[in-house]
This record gives sequence, C-alpha cells and structure tokens, in this order.
Amino acid sequence: MNNTRQRILAGGLDLLSQSGFAGITLSVLAEKSGMSKSGLFAHFGSKEEVQLSLLEKMTEVGASTFLAPAMQHPQGLPRLKAVFTGWLGWTERAGLHGGCPVAAGMFEFDDADLNHPVRKRLEAMEQAWRSLLAQLTLEAIDAGDLSPSLDVDQFVWEVCGIYLNHHVSHRFIRDPMALQRASTAFSSLLNRSSNVALKPDPSSE
Amino acid sequence: MNNTRQRILAGGLDLLSQSGFAGITLSVLAEKSGMSKSGLFAHFGSKEEVQLSLLEKMTEVGASTFLAPAMQHPQGLPRLKAVFTGWLGWTERAGLHGGCPVAAGMFEFDDADLNHPVRKRLEAMEQAWRSLLAQLTLEAIDAGDLSPSLDVDQFVWEVCGIYLNHHVSHRFIRDPMALQRASTAFSSLLNRSSNVALKPDPSSE
Repeated sequence: MNNTRQRILAGGLDLLSQSGFAGITLSVLAEKSGMSKSGLFAHFGSKEEVQLSLLEKMTEVGASTFLAPAMQHPQGLPRLKAVFTGWLGWTERAGLHGGCPVAAGMFEFDDADLNHPVRKRLEAMEQAWRSLLAQLTLEAIDAGDLSPSLDVDQFVWEVCGIYLNHHVSHRFIRDPMALQRASTAFSSLLNRSSNVALKPDPSSE
Repeated sequence: MNNTRQRILAGGLDLLSQSGFAGITLSVLAEKSGMSKSGLFAHFGSKEEVQLSLLEKMTEVGASTFLAPAMQHPQGLPRLKAVFTGWLGWTERAGLHGGCPVAAGMFEFDDADLNHPVRKRLEAMEQAWRSLLAQLTLEAIDAGDLSPSLDVDQFVWEVCGIYLNHHVSHRFIRDPMALQRASTAFSSLLNRSSNVALKPDPSSE
C-alpha cells in the first residue's frame, strides 16, 4: 500500500508543480496514476487530503534535493549561501516539470478563506521556512560573517523577494539571465549586511 | 451594449483578482453578472476572449488608479518613487477584493504552453511594465538622482522582487509590516543606486 501511495504522491507532486492546486482533483490524479477514482479513495479520502499530503511530500523532496546537502556546509555564511543557492530552481533538480508549489500556492490561495486547510498549511510552511532562514542568518552573525546590527527580519524578507522574482524570471519570463540577476541581488544584499561593507563606523553608533 | 460589457468586465476583474484565471469561466461569470451563458456569449465568444478582455480592463483600471496620477510627479526620482508607491497594493485602492492579476498570473501560467494566448498576453504586459520602470529609472539617472553607472536592468529586477514579496507578505501572510518592509527595501535599493551610494543611509540606523 505504501508503495502505491508514494507513487500517487510522486506523480501528483509533479502535476502540482505544473498546474497548481487548481489542477489537482481526484479525477485528474486517478487518471495520471492509472487508477480508478475509488481506488484512489482507498488512499486519500478527499481532494484536500491529497493536497495536504502533496505538500508533505514536497517538504521531503525539497529536504533531500537541496536542504539536507546544503546544511552540511559549515555553519555561518557558507551554510546560508548554500541553502539560498540550492533553493533557487530546486524543483528542476528534483526532477519536477514545474515550479515551486509553495511560491505558486501563496498567489493561488492569498484570497482564500483564512481557515482553508491548504492555505493554513502553506502559511505554516512559509513561516517555518522564513524562520529557518532567520536562524541561518543569526548563525552567520554569530560567526562574524554578517553585521550584529543587521535587521534579520528585513534581511530574510529581501531574500524571499529575490527568490520569488527568480521564480518569475526563470519559469515565466524564461529569462536566461534569471540566475545571474538573483545571484547579483543576493551578493549585493550580503555585501551591505556584512561587517565591513557600506556600514557606518561602529564607533559612531 | 457597451455598458453591459463594461459591467461584466468590472465584476469579472474583481473575480479574477480573487480567484485567478482558473476561477474565470463563462458559467461563473454569467452567474456573477446575473446573465445567461448564451447572453454572455453575445459579448465574449470564448473563455480566453473573456480572460484577455479582463487583462485589458485591468490595464485601464491600473492606469486610472495609480499610474496616471503617479506620472504627474516631476520626472526623475519623484516620478519613479510615486509609481512604485502607487503600484504596491494598487488593487485595493481600485476597489478590488483580491490581488494583482498579473503577479498571480505569472505563477499560474508559468508552466502553460508558451503559445497560450493568456500566457503570451501576461508576458507582454510584464515586459511592457518592466520597460516602463526601466525608462523611469533612466530618467532618474538623467535627472542626476541615480548613478550613471547603475545597472538599470538589475535595478528594475530588484524592484520587481520587492513588489512580488510585498504581494505575498501583504495578501497571503497578512503581515502588518509588509508595507514598511517593502519601503525599507526600496529605500535601501535607491540609496545604493544613488550618486552618493557609499554614504550610509542615516534613516536605516
């Protein structure tokens, strides 16, 4: 049973990355998995249950594709950089044919009922992700790589903007410069957040 | 006839801003407009024709809501700032109940057929918008407000990232700090793009 479930979720995640949540229904997923709708019901009781399971699957795939390897880098700036670099375009390296389901989901569900279970799960995932980025940033400060006076929440906010715009530039506009633009923006952000660049003399603060 | 068409498009644009293109079908739009589906067909021959007309309507509404007033500001930095400030959260000031259809559409259509007419229209609109931002940036350079050595395409790229993340922060995460974060990021970008970029921004301390 678990193998079947995993096979459904793997195919479903690929579909989700291409079509968004609107493209995930039990009928479409049954067809893609070569199962009957009632066969699919044995594994998932509702469309929402499938969608939530797909987000869980996505977390696993993202962890094995880029997060776990990036976390092997030394704590501080090397790890922060590795996580950011691995995050950009991770779905392709995971073998998916579309973009990041959370990035797209935040635009698909922004005006949904605040208690919609998929919206709530997406929000919890995004908050957890931003918290991880904040923790990595704090570790880079502790390591002396970034300035102790850095506004960590603002830094993470700007990192997320670079990610979203890379997603649009790369996947929607298909701009061959997308990765270079994102890397330049991230380097510039690091530069002005470091201990030495563009910072006032510490003695004058 | 034009009044009916305008009424359908006004209601449809509000729907589009909340539900995305997946939420726009002739049935749903007919119901929202209090018309029969065949009555709607008298105005729009297909779902795609409705969707393209809604994007045209969006351009008109965006122009009257924020772009035209912002363009009244003096050429150079004042105009660039006014356009950026007006762009953030413009749909609410236009009386819509959802977010920006182009921002969301770029995530909804990124993996659609490259020749899909809605995808093509969205891409043309986004490119035109980025060209306008580039032109305003060049004018700010000509006015002596920004550095002549500025990489204009990179600057515009980063501005678009701030916009996208403001959209997510404000509409999806509902972060009360969204506008402040976007303003800080934009000020920081302007500061390092100005003629005196190496001077620390006193307001950021």
